[in-house]
Amino acid sequence: MNAEILAVGTELLMGQIANTNAQYISGRLSEQGINVYYHSVVGDNPRRLKESLELALKRSDVVIMTGGLGPTQDDLTKETVAEILNRKLILHQESLEKIKAFFQSINRPMTENNIKQAYLPEGSLIIRNDKGTAPGCIIEADGKVVIMLPGPPSEMKPMFEHTVIPYFSEKSDYKIESKYLRIFGVGESAMEEQLIDMIEKQVNPTIAPYAKEGEVTLRVTARCGKQENAAELIEPVVREITNRLGNAVYSTDNKNLEEVAGELLINHNISIALAESCTGGLVTSKLTNIPGISKVLNRTVVSYSNEAKIESLNVSPDTLQKHGAVSKETAEEMAIGTREAARTDIGVSITGIAGPEGGTEEKPVGLVYIALADKNGVCSKELRLWGDRSRIRNTTSLFVFDMIRRYVLKLD
Amino acid sequence: MNAEILAVGTELLMGQIANTNAQYISGRLSEQGINVYYHSVVGDNPRRLKESLELALKRSDVVIMTGGLGPTQDDLTKETVAEILNRKLILHQESLEKIKAFFQSINRPMTENNIKQAYLPEGSLIIRNDKGTAPGCIIEADGKVVIMLPGPPSEMKPMFEHTVIPYFSEKSDYKIESKYLRIFGVGESAMEEQLIDMIEKQVNPTIAPYAKEGEVTLRVTARCGKQENAAELIEPVVREITNRLGNAVYSTDNKNLEEVAGELLINHNISIALAESCTGGLVTSKLTNIPGISKVLNRTVVSYSNEAKIESLNVSPDTLQKHGAVSKETAEEMAIGTREAARTDIGVSITGIAGPEGGTEEKPVGLVYIALADKNGVCSKELRLWGDRSRIRNTTSLFVFDMIRRYVLKLD
Repeated sequence: MNAEILAVGTELLMGQIANTNAQYISGRLSEQGINVYYHSVVGDNPRRLKESLELALKRSDVVIMTGGLGPTQDDLTKETVAEILNRKLILHQESLEKIKAFFQSINRPMTENNIKQAYLPEGSLIIRNDKGTAPGCIIEADGKVVIMLPGPPSEMKPMFEHTVIPYFSEKSDYKIESKYLRIFGVGESAMEEQLIDMIEKQVNPTIAPYAKEGEVTLRVTARCGKQENAAELIEPVVREITNRLGNAVYSTDNKNLEEVAGELLINHNISIALAESCTGGLVTSKLTNIPGISKVLNRTVVSYSNEAKIESLNVSPDTLQKHGAVSKETAEEMAIGTREAARTDIGVSITGIAGPEGGTEEKPVGLVYIALADKNGVCSKELRLWGDRSRIRNTTSLFVFDMIRRYVLKLD
Repeated sequence: MNAEILAVGTELLMGQIANTNAQYISGRLSEQGINVYYHSVVGDNPRRLKESLELALKRSDVVIMTGGLGPTQDDLTKETVAEILNRKLILHQESLEKIKAFFQSINRPMTENNIKQAYLPEGSLIIRNDKGTAPGCIIEADGKVVIMLPGPPSEMKPMFEHTVIPYFSEKSDYKIESKYLRIFGVGESAMEEQLIDMIEKQVNPTIAPYAKEGEVTLRVTARCGKQENAAELIEPVVREITNRLGNAVYSTDNKNLEEVAGELLINHNISIALAESCTGGLVTSKLTNIPGISKVLNRTVVSYSNEAKIESLNVSPDTLQKHGAVSKETAEEMAIGTREAARTDIGVSITGIAGPEGGTEEKPVGLVYIALADKNGVCSKELRLWGDRSRIRNTTSLFVFDMIRRYVLKLD
């Protein structure tokens, strides 16, 4: 069974919103073993909508439409579906009552055009809408399935969950499961070379790599009968990949690097203080996205001046003068200094040149030092990064989280 | 001229990412007066990609493709376009040199498969990629235009700006110019009431409002002949809007609030130190996105523990005990403390409950205090925000930048 998501709405074609509905529905369908082969978006235009729907019905078994169910004249989804499938639109009394009750609950009069929302194609399974006025529906016709859902994600998502998902899992006789391996410290093409034989012979499970700002994700997807255990297909492949790539694989649960690093700190109860220079608080800001981090994070000093490095982090003025603010020596003293000030288990520091200004031949934009101090001493790492200010700062934060992760792993 | 955006990538069909490229390109094309009638997404599948491209070429004048230009085997965009348009793929030496130089600059060996990225369809206009390895291209064939761009938005966007936009504006016989007014501190419907007569009578320029997490943007768009001066149409409208909304309009150049606040500090040479609690470095991280901020930003303390507040910010233990870490009193002492430690012109602080944990009946999630201290004293503001952790932290940062902005404006 393959599906297509057809979104209707001029606001998508004008770039006012992104088609996050298609992302959500696609993710949920692929978990259910339904392949999504196409997304399409079309505006509130009767001819183009009709042609797009006809095409979708020709090439896909299931067409999930979002948007165009509202009360106004340019909401045409149901009318178009009814015409193509040759069904009458009939009044669904229960939906009408719900719409009336909805307007009563928000203390506004129901205008006439809202009645249109309670008209649904004959013989369709109604999907009730608890968060808004437009009901959705499922229609089976000529071996195809057409599903209509409203555009606002806050209405669409619960309707998808309480009616569409159960509808499909009842129909399906197999399932698809995926596992996501997140990898840091090895490029996409280098990784492909290490895995090329596995990728080439893949059938079930399949392996799909994709890269994103310094990171690579591998998706391992297995398809099996409903009673079978997909993990039995997936796990040997995941094991083989992690054997080959070692601890460059930082998550097999699709967690991101900051989560992995933060949770390692929390679970091992390792207290931390940071000193950030070129990242300007970005690393701490990401770390504090993680609920529970306050248990281990004591403080961070964003030292954007030499005085701050000297006063708050106890960096020696000599070091700053001799080696400069962007140096291995300063990074190490910053890590030691923030750890001592906060009396934490570890201290982590970052100093570098994020650009666009400030680079020299000797110390170019993208040169960054990161350091980690604990009770036994301090170690540091030189990074040579590329890209604009934002990319350099982001990539630096990944290296910092990776340094923390590898540090905690070594303790075990 | 009508356009279609055809995205290539199984990760879109699996729901791993949303098609934000289509949103970006659509927004920019409609500003240029080019209608986007369709978005489509297809996976890394040769047959479906070919059929989708053939369809797009039949129904659209311009087909903009994103994704599938990478070095791996399932990157098929160029190959498919070359086949359909009957063009050879030829080595573009300059692109190859750039790719080689790129790998050299990051100190990694270039693997063989990367050479594939330098092969481009014969007779195409190359779009250089300054942020990654895959160049893009523009091909004119049989009255149609096919444009190929890489999938990562950080690469795609600058390529779109430096080559695709100029390509279209040269082709067009009129031009479209827009100005963006950014507004903070007045809701969308309140704003609409103040501007309703202007919005209703709009013809050229047009006025389009859109709201996003606590902010409103107004786009004023004029269309005129290429030799005419669009500013003459736009400026009177912009002046009238800013007259009505006063300094709720924080930018008429589509700058964001952190840029406006940061540049005010830099231009007035007002030195600043911060103390962040619930925002965890987010405010400083945004502020340090602004080139040149190091001239005025001295330091930030992210005080994630009471000790940090006492030791690094000189908050009185009594205040913490009597009023709590989330209180007007603590916020004000934090602002004073960070200013005194750093000896800056102003000190700015944030303390609050970002959730999901930590709320009580008296101090619920979303309660935030922000304060600003200068040589004359300290003022503070209580915020009651809603939403999840990330929304509360983001909205807080907007209020902080607005507080800084209004403070500097008052000095004039």
